[in-house]
Amino acid sequence: MADERVYNFAAGPSTMPESALKTAAAEMLNFRGSGMSVMEISHRSPLFQEVFDGAKAKLKALLQVPDTHEILLLQGGATTQFAAIPMNLMEGGAADYAVTGNFSGKAAQEAEKYGTVHIAADTGDSGHSRIPAQSELKLSADAKYFYYCANNTIFGTEWHYVPRTEAPLVCDMSSDILSRRVDVSKFGLIYAGAQKNMAPAGLTVVIVDKRLAGREEPITPKILSYKTMIETDSLLNTPPCWCIYMLGLTLDWVIAQGGVPAMEQLKQERAGMVYAFLDESRLFKPHARPEARSWMNVTFRTGDKDLDAEFVKGAAARGLVNLKGHKLTGGIRASLYNAMPVEGARALVEYMKEFEAHHV
Amino acid sequence: MADERVYNFAAGPSTMPESALKTAAAEMLNFRGSGMSVMEISHRSPLFQEVFDGAKAKLKALLQVPDTHEILLLQGGATTQFAAIPMNLMEGGAADYAVTGNFSGKAAQEAEKYGTVHIAADTGDSGHSRIPAQSELKLSADAKYFYYCANNTIFGTEWHYVPRTEAPLVCDMSSDILSRRVDVSKFGLIYAGAQKNMAPAGLTVVIVDKRLAGREEPITPKILSYKTMIETDSLLNTPPCWCIYMLGLTLDWVIAQGGVPAMEQLKQERAGMVYAFLDESRLFKPHARPEARSWMNVTFRTGDKDLDAEFVKGAAARGLVNLKGHKLTGGIRASLYNAMPVEGARALVEYMKEFEAHHV
Repeated sequence: MADERVYNFAAGPSTMPESALKTAAAEMLNFRGSGMSVMEISHRSPLFQEVFDGAKAKLKALLQVPDTHEILLLQGGATTQFAAIPMNLMEGGAADYAVTGNFSGKAAQEAEKYGTVHIAADTGDSGHSRIPAQSELKLSADAKYFYYCANNTIFGTEWHYVPRTEAPLVCDMSSDILSRRVDVSKFGLIYAGAQKNMAPAGLTVVIVDKRLAGREEPITPKILSYKTMIETDSLLNTPPCWCIYMLGLTLDWVIAQGGVPAMEQLKQERAGMVYAFLDESRLFKPHARPEARSWMNVTFRTGDKDLDAEFVKGAAARGLVNLKGHKLTGGIRASLYNAMPVEGARALVEYMKEFEAHHV
Repeated sequence: MADERVYNFAAGPSTMPESALKTAAAEMLNFRGSGMSVMEISHRSPLFQEVFDGAKAKLKALLQVPDTHEILLLQGGATTQFAAIPMNLMEGGAADYAVTGNFSGKAAQEAEKYGTVHIAADTGDSGHSRIPAQSELKLSADAKYFYYCANNTIFGTEWHYVPRTEAPLVCDMSSDILSRRVDVSKFGLIYAGAQKNMAPAGLTVVIVDKRLAGREEPITPKILSYKTMIETDSLLNTPPCWCIYMLGLTLDWVIAQGGVPAMEQLKQERAGMVYAFLDESRLFKPHARPEARSWMNVTFRTGDKDLDAEFVKGAAARGLVNLKGHKLTGGIRASLYNAMPVEGARALVEYMKEFEAHHV
């Protein structure tokens, strides 16, 4: 495979649009006639400001972000938001957390440093193979916000409804942002690590209702204050310029495909193909319950560890790489993010069929 | 200039080695025969681990980091360290801060949230044109550490000695790391935003004495805990993979030039040329006092704002770009980091001479 691209099913960092990579390579030594790389120009220069404003404007249009909300382009990943959210929004009080996987569990744990965490739901007893129904959610009267993770990368489940709560909704959309239409006005805060559907690792997008800003604890680092970052338009200090540039190029690709509605259609084609085969397979068993299935991460297994490993190895030999499941679950995982071509999903299903024919 | 590279005197993000950019462009779509970009591979994959370990090993060798110290590759920039340092090391007590410019001032201000800040020195009355002598430093008996910024990018001054203190030394080397030999064992903690001498913005290198880890306040976000980051080898969450890759490529270039001793020689050639002309100039006045001059950022002015602006504009027309001084100081600033070719400094001096001949 030394001279050709592969189909990359990694859960993140993950496959990116080839057009974005090609543009980045072509502009590397001389960005827009400046005689410099985009990495070499000041974050305070008009040339970079254009990159920055462009990426924000594209995101605002694609997600239809209302003017009540601000888009922040930050560093630190979801793990930083696990602390920033309670530091900014909990006011030393309480919050509701729905634990439906590894990352929402970690978020709840971190929030305990800053106030009282009520577990509104915990799907651990099902091996996180399901998503709680609205009626199951235990909502607290004193919750400053309700926290959940929209898509569970490791377990391959996804919330297919937006919870109804009194408290503002805070949602980790790291692994399904831009793959579905979302009414942003329903959320107090949405955030996403960029390294799945948006940009290289090192950028975190936060979309925050400006009316929630200014409630941070006194010990909140300035750089974690949403109020400060809103006031400085995310430019309190040097931002991750390269990642923001790549975000813009990726969003150009999303727009060229037809925006978020096109991403919805593509994801249904891709994951739909894999789930359809899983439902008739005599060898592979899906992990997630049908009603909770993720459109982004399809998790399954044969039930035999050695056979799973053989499948992953055989796939890689055909240029279908990074299909190994997360260490917490084992098995097989196909991450089918926005930039995965439909042909990649088709090639995967073909290989699954062939593998099954040899092993059943 | 549309089709050629310029000499870029920006203070950061700033010029990078052309060889690093060329390699990055060539490998963009297919990193080491993987069929993927380095941005698309998992941070837990053996291929990325090689990139990560390689960058760390090169840095360890170049800076001769002793085994008592750990190198962390983090996100968030110096501004994040302004908070992380007191959260980890102050233990709710006190620390000494030497304020010799904008960023050490900001660091001191942020530290006040977490304990008592003693100002060990403040050169504000000189317009930060000088560095305090050892004898001037007011050292406190209760200081948990002594903080200073080795090179002041905005004012063009640099500490040419390492302070002698009882408390562990904490040093911001953002703008002169890898440009001078440093005895790392003398420091409790060294950190540097990468975007001047190391890599694109979005990466912060922290070199911490492991014996100082584990003293963090309970409210410290997990991601800001040095102890946690040491234990996870900076891989608690997804790191800024692209920046770490570019760090490795930049360090390859540093090594090929002859390492830190070669960087020392090159900086003396570059900045020495500019200072030599400034000392005989009848038009340009240097900002920093001779004994405090930075080898990285040369600050000067004509004394006439319009003339400064004309100089900066004329320089840009010749491909000598980003010479405008910081808004706090005005005037002119030539940042001459490691990757600036000696020819760039020479071209600058030639233009200064020519400009002076027309205006004196």
